Amino acid sequence: MPRTRQLLDTLSVSFRPQVSSERLAAAIDAMLECEEAVTACAAAMVGEDDVRELHDAIIRDLNCSDTVATTRRLISRGSDAALLSAQLEACVIACEHSAELCAEHANHHEHCRICSQATLRCAEACRQILHRLHG
Amino acid sequence: MPRTRQLLDTLSVSFRPQVSSERLAAAIDAMLECEEAVTACAAAMVGEDDVRELHDAIIRDLNCSDTVATTRRLISRGSDAALLSAQLEACVIACEHSAELCAEHANHHEHCRICSQATLRCAEACRQILHRLHG
Amino acid sequence: MPRTRQLLDTLSVSFRPQVSSERLAAAIDAMLECEEAVTACAAAMVGEDDVRELHDAIIRDLNCSDTVATTRRLISRGSDAALLSAQLEACVIACEHSAELCAEHANHHEHCRICSQATLRCAEACRQILHRLHG
Amino acid sequence: MPRTRQLLDTLSVSFRPQVSSERLAAAIDAMLECEEAVTACAAAMVGEDDVRELHDAIIRDLNCSDTVATTRRLISRGSDAALLSAQLEACVIACEHSAELCAEHANHHEHCRICSQATLRCAEACRQILHRLHG
Repeated sequence: MPRTRQLLDTLSVSFRPQVSSERLAAAIDAMLECEEAVTACAAAMVGEDDVRELHDAIIRDLNCSDTVATTRRLISRGSDAALLSAQLEACVIACEHSAELCAEHANHHEHCRICSQATLRCAEACRQILHRLHG
Repeated sequence: MPRTRQLLDTLSVSFRPQVSSERLAAAIDAMLECEEAVTACAAAMVGEDDVRELHDAIIRDLNCSDTVATTRRLISRGSDAALLSAQLEACVIACEHSAELCAEHANHHEHCRICSQATLRCAEACRQILHRLHG
Repeated sequence: MPRTRQLLDTLSVSFRPQVSSERLAAAIDAMLECEEAVTACAAAMVGEDDVRELHDAIIRDLNCSDTVATTRRLISRGSDAALLSAQLEACVIACEHSAELCAEHANHHEHCRICSQATLRCAEACRQILHRLHG
Repeated sequence: MPRTRQLLDTLSVSFRPQVSSERLAAAIDAMLECEEAVTACAAAMVGEDDVRELHDAIIRDLNCSDTVATTRRLISRGSDAALLSAQLEACVIACEHSAELCAEHANHHEHCRICSQATLRCAEACRQILHRLHG
């Protein structure tokens, strides 16, 4: 969203030198989209006829939702690099684990297909920030 | 985001008959933007020179962030109308209270200006859904 | 927890005159216990053999978890009575709805039994505060 | 709380072999207490006369609140060890960072004293679980 970039430009977050506000805004947008996708997908899976095969995918989506939300809040507050790095590492794992299982169900559940794409984009955006924080 | 609409069309949420997925997607997008704006604005206000004048605005932004996040999750899960209505009522108040104070600081803090607009849009989107749930 | 009471006594929250810190501390403890019970119970239900019969109970537990967490944060920040009342109303509904369904499964799932008791205690604690806010 | 232990004994979480339910229950209780303490302390600091000296402590409390809440939810869902380890690492940092600054203000703000103790206990409980997950 153009407004995410506009908002970030009004802030003075501590990791600015290493990470451009364009990249941050893109990451935040990927996170927002991911939070919504995993929340909706988890609830939809709970109602599917094959829910017994979806157990792990549901738990991973729920975990991903909380992990991404916390990571986004930390980024938005301009948190210190040590905490942010650790939280981003957890976020990448949460997104990849969620994507892995939803991708297996993407053929028969459209919400899983959309969700697995959103979590992969979010994981990639987090890795981009991590790379710059460590670089 | 077009993807929010695409995601919602894969779900079978219980209030569909009264609320179109277009309107729901617009509300969810307004909520996501609001969640991000109030989180970033609250943190930015904590670092301002006039933070002592911003006490109530900071608390209202923090409250708004949590209230909107919960409301969006309930909507995304296709929750029952009784709970959703009550949570939407709280959400409208949280957004209006946040907007009221950030608007007072919009002239000297750009993040407050952006935030007050985001909370007003979110309040309006929630009222639209409430109106249809009750109608 | 005695520490909750000790913590509250260091704060100057706006609804103190109507609600004693003893009652507030008891409500916060009931909420903390409820948040944990519904989160764990929802995840446990997802893994049960009869998960297909538990759909609505899972969604209600997830909703309850988010709603109670937000309500507790608002209370802990000493928020204004208008927002707090609306959020408490939503919280009571979320807890009652969750308790209603978990009670139906209390005989064959011990986590549902514990969860339904925790949500009922939380609903009652919230009603007590609501009663005093309005009284 | 005895009920936390009682609840955990009804679940079949994946890291049980390495981590006893006693230790898990103790960690969850430490997290619940920590979540409440940092949320209330952050809001109280925003209202203090010396709020301009408390900027970093407020942000760290807010970050700690979200990080601990997410970590607790992951533990309560019996999540896989890889994600849980990464999230626990972030949680320890969030708690230690919060404790570090609140300890500096413990002499003149009682809520900071209580908060710094709660975050230290939470960090220690998380390290105990991490140690066993890796051991």
